[in-house]
Amino acid sequence: MIVVGERINTSRKSIQKAVEERDADFIRAEALKQAEAGADFLDVNAGSNVRTESADLKWLMEVVQDAVEVPLCIDSPNPQVLEEAIALHRNGTPMINSITAEQERMEALIPLLKETDALVVALCMGGSGMPSNAQERLDAARTILERLSSTGIARERIYFDPVICPISTSPEAAGAALETVRTISTEFEGCHTICGLSNISFGLPKRTHINRSFLALMLNAGLDSVIMDPTEPMMMATLYATNAILGRDEFCLEYISAAREGKL
Amino acid sequence: MIVVGERINTSRKSIQKAVEERDADFIRAEALKQAEAGADFLDVNAGSNVRTESADLKWLMEVVQDAVEVPLCIDSPNPQVLEEAIALHRNGTPMINSITAEQERMEALIPLLKETDALVVALCMGGSGMPSNAQERLDAARTILERLSSTGIARERIYFDPVICPISTSPEAAGAALETVRTISTEFEGCHTICGLSNISFGLPKRTHINRSFLALMLNAGLDSVIMDPTEPMMMATLYATNAILGRDEFCLEYISAAREGKL
Repeated sequence: MIVVGERINTSRKSIQKAVEERDADFIRAEALKQAEAGADFLDVNAGSNVRTESADLKWLMEVVQDAVEVPLCIDSPNPQVLEEAIALHRNGTPMINSITAEQERMEALIPLLKETDALVVALCMGGSGMPSNAQERLDAARTILERLSSTGIARERIYFDPVICPISTSPEAAGAALETVRTISTEFEGCHTICGLSNISFGLPKRTHINRSFLALMLNAGLDSVIMDPTEPMMMATLYATNAILGRDEFCLEYISAAREGKL
Repeated sequence: MIVVGERINTSRKSIQKAVEERDADFIRAEALKQAEAGADFLDVNAGSNVRTESADLKWLMEVVQDAVEVPLCIDSPNPQVLEEAIALHRNGTPMINSITAEQERMEALIPLLKETDALVVALCMGGSGMPSNAQERLDAARTILERLSSTGIARERIYFDPVICPISTSPEAAGAALETVRTISTEFEGCHTICGLSNISFGLPKRTHINRSFLALMLNAGLDSVIMDPTEPMMMATLYATNAILGRDEFCLEYISAAREGKL
């Protein structure tokens, strides 16, 4: 089970400001608190200003890698930005976020995946925008799996993300995501599932309640990795508790130690 | 969706003391805070002293019914105690807690169910102790359903409880309960499911995390009613959030009003 900390993303105003001002202390603190909360990877995204994205991302990576030893989840829709950034990665195996079933984007990233041992987040969508149901997501996933497998990339490196829409505007959003994860985790042998889950609660008040319940349901559907804010109160507790309930934590030992260490 | 408040139970020391001392103020406060938190029924259980159970239960019922208008879930394994107690019920339709597949206990309660319109909690177990898997639970449920149906008791009055064992000692406990609820809610047309869920976390630290995640998973499995502590922080929030995620709350309106009313 991999937890990717999502906080270092310029779509958050405080991060955008810190990047613009090259405020390394602020970014370092964000990196440290996520690693301490239990993040196995840290997402780094500097995509809000396309003109400066590459330089901003490289700066972020340097600062974060100086601060913590966890590997990075390098987050950009631009294959060229990813290629330049991954050359700077130095703590363990990186994760690339993300590939889609869109032909051009996929082909542009395949050489990078072949040259490195990077893990890859594969969004279950094609080039025509948000998928509208589980079937479209699974079709996209199959397209990606076939193409990556044909180039010899191991299934174990692929983390399928069902692409979460907000329930406030798409009542069927959660059901489609749960079905996608359930199918991939049972039928796509060796592949992983992951999701950026907080989008589920976009537009709603007290988002954390929705995020927590949705995390429990996604774990139950088979989700084995998650992109989330590990410092959000109770998210890690929900993760430990749900794994204990689902029998994935023998004798609840991890849950009990987390409680003893004051993590719950 | 019915929420039964579980707090007024003499297995809790403070309640036992209040019952012994006939401390009506204490019981009234317990009733009021559960009703305010959103309980649709209040469980009343005076079973810890068998000798005085009947008198204690009657006293509890009088105090609670003077304090709040919600109906009661009259909780005793003793059919005679239930029969005497139900005669005192005056706010709406009562719930009887509980019947099992044990022949003698079931037959003793059938006349009471025929004479009244009470709802009934049916524990998915027979006379030989805790069921060890989902199959034994479903067998007990089928026995109860057949017998009650044969006497003309409507399916809509039956609330099957899968009988929750603690995950600390039974790693398969949650899975068996989830499977039982999933099967009953899809195959037992018209019947309801309910569960006393906090037993899942017995023996573990920080039980509330386990209770909340388990509630989310049980709702996802089809649970339509629950016996819980509605005053436990975040339990009602988990309930609202999970129903919104599962598409049981159109446009998330109930969730949004609960947030506006400060209930989350």
